[in-house]
Amino acid sequence: MTVSDRWLLPDGVEDILPPLAGRIESLRRDVMDTCQRWGYQLVIPPLIEYLESLFTGTGHDLELQTFKLTDQLTGRMMGVRADMTPQAARIDAHTLRQEGVTRLCYAGHVLNTRPQHMLTGRTPIQAGCELFGSRSESADLEVISLMLAALRVAGLPRIHLDLAHVAIYQALIAEAGFDADTEATIFDAMQRKSVPELNELLGGCPADSAGGQLRGLVAVSGGIEALDQARVILKGASDNVVQALDQLARVADMLKRDFPEVGLGFDFCELRGYNYHTGLVFAAYAPGHGDAVAKGGRYDAIGSDFGRARPATGFSLDVRALVALGDRASIRSGAIWAPVSDDPALAGVVAGLRLTETVVQALPDETGVDPVSRGCDRVLSLRDGQWVVESL
Amino acid sequence: MTVSDRWLLPDGVEDILPPLAGRIESLRRDVMDTCQRWGYQLVIPPLIEYLESLFTGTGHDLELQTFKLTDQLTGRMMGVRADMTPQAARIDAHTLRQEGVTRLCYAGHVLNTRPQHMLTGRTPIQAGCELFGSRSESADLEVISLMLAALRVAGLPRIHLDLAHVAIYQALIAEAGFDADTEATIFDAMQRKSVPELNELLGGCPADSAGGQLRGLVAVSGGIEALDQARVILKGASDNVVQALDQLARVADMLKRDFPEVGLGFDFCELRGYNYHTGLVFAAYAPGHGDAVAKGGRYDAIGSDFGRARPATGFSLDVRALVALGDRASIRSGAIWAPVSDDPALAGVVAGLRLTETVVQALPDETGVDPVSRGCDRVLSLRDGQWVVESL
Repeated sequence: MTVSDRWLLPDGVEDILPPLAGRIESLRRDVMDTCQRWGYQLVIPPLIEYLESLFTGTGHDLELQTFKLTDQLTGRMMGVRADMTPQAARIDAHTLRQEGVTRLCYAGHVLNTRPQHMLTGRTPIQAGCELFGSRSESADLEVISLMLAALRVAGLPRIHLDLAHVAIYQALIAEAGFDADTEATIFDAMQRKSVPELNELLGGCPADSAGGQLRGLVAVSGGIEALDQARVILKGASDNVVQALDQLARVADMLKRDFPEVGLGFDFCELRGYNYHTGLVFAAYAPGHGDAVAKGGRYDAIGSDFGRARPATGFSLDVRALVALGDRASIRSGAIWAPVSDDPALAGVVAGLRLTETVVQALPDETGVDPVSRGCDRVLSLRDGQWVVESL
Repeated sequence: MTVSDRWLLPDGVEDILPPLAGRIESLRRDVMDTCQRWGYQLVIPPLIEYLESLFTGTGHDLELQTFKLTDQLTGRMMGVRADMTPQAARIDAHTLRQEGVTRLCYAGHVLNTRPQHMLTGRTPIQAGCELFGSRSESADLEVISLMLAALRVAGLPRIHLDLAHVAIYQALIAEAGFDADTEATIFDAMQRKSVPELNELLGGCPADSAGGQLRGLVAVSGGIEALDQARVILKGASDNVVQALDQLARVADMLKRDFPEVGLGFDFCELRGYNYHTGLVFAAYAPGHGDAVAKGGRYDAIGSDFGRARPATGFSLDVRALVALGDRASIRSGAIWAPVSDDPALAGVVAGLRLTETVVQALPDETGVDPVSRGCDRVLSLRDGQWVVESL
């Protein structure tokens, strides 16, 4: 192994340097502060857990995304978290065990075996909020509203929001009664919106059967008019489907009223990445970037595997990606240079300045250094026996 | 696997809940802000790296402490960071490549295969500062001073600081010329201060030989008088050893002047946990707790394996442990309860309050809930058509 090999970082893994690291930390704080002002309380879930608790109630995709480790103390398999939402659900159901509504938020590194998105690599910095214990649409709306508030904090005002509802696909595919392999093939073809494949798979189904309705839905996406098209295709569908469509319509109305600047879209087949969701789901997009910048939705079933099903909805986002896409006022980075000096008064002056300012103390072996090259815009100087701050 | 088994967390792994999580986040921010006001710039090193770059220049202990993973993209072995200091050194030497002095700080989870200390478990939240590019004692003193300032921020004013110098042991053991196995046995016996074993191993060495001096040093520890005892035992030792003793004396003098409230101690054999250090090392202790709450020191050699040796010193601490030991004023936790209401003006009132306050919006399915049980000390009420905040 050569010296230069030792420096290489794995693909999708990066050092975050100044000043970018400072901007990420600043946005992380502002997003967390926003969540806390909405009543969401901070939890810090662990980096690792036993695999069973990481995956319970979640889908196969999350398992593939998770790095596995052997616990040397017990020999059991552990995983590094790939998603903090199931951890928050476990904390709500088991560790906190509160009755009624519980609101939690969190922020931290997660680890993925493969890069998920271009901007996030394999070590996203996930921040999110989860609301447990309420089945109300007000809860869904609160979570979407808080997500949009967090995106505004990130300097992403022009947002497009896609709404979908997992129950529509789930009800239709269950009703159609295919075997598991065919179901997986259909799901895959719908994600790719491959009409030829779906015609082959579902071509024999009448238009008003569940299979025919699935085939029809793949062509439906777009603005509020897509909702009306879906109603036509899904005419005569089961109560679950009709209720899901009604809910989408009501939530869209409320969002149009509260966030007129946000573009709304509907897609009834785009379900990739919703590993454990059961109801209304949503994803926010920024102009010019194909991956969602924040997403979430309802996942009422996750707790049932733990013996305590709780209604739940929430969202999460990647702080690193938001800093890359957003347009935040840059933080003030000026600092004061303190020269090497024998004056015993200097230490006190520096200590006082540091209560509110950044002060870089020169070291004896860096004489002749330009303070500007150290990020300083001002310098401490001794004038008539007094230390003063002067601009550079 | 039963339902209750799924809930278990591995030993040394914990959920951090409200309000403790909020106190940890608050201290993490204050420590980072203190470091930044001293001119240390934030970096965010990655959670995982290839094993070679994690371990280069570090000791065997760190390797045992590191969880290993296989990179599915390349088949190479990676590790989850067990210590962020070597990562900062890599960033300084390779990624930043600045000339002159570079000051970096960082904070984040690290992962250990086995619990290191009682208060930290296997997932410490490490925060620290590293100063690269200066051989001066001023650099060592700056790092110690900043560490003490960070401990004061944590509400740990009564600190005992142990000073040591890795070069003393290293020079003596090299001069004594034992084989590697005997060296390891001697090192182990010295860490345990086992006089009988050392008498057996080193009993044949004259008192003024390197072996005899090692045997003599094991009995020496304590306050400033220990330094004088060491000078007697080490009379006639090599220049390296004398210079190390002189440096300890000078740094102790400066610390007595600048931090008269900090108790100083010396120990010439306690080197466990200094995996990559080469010079002056230090560890801070809080009353009534046996593990160091913060530690660090000089490690000038770590970069040489990467082809760019840089003088370096720094410290790190565990934010989680400091919150457990410290005595910080608790953060204000009051919140305002907003009831369910049809009044369209309420949303605007809540949005306004949330600019500075925490507001918990009641959901339709939580009628009859006591706002106090949701952490609220005030409530929004409609009086004569106006929303007002009332104490509970």
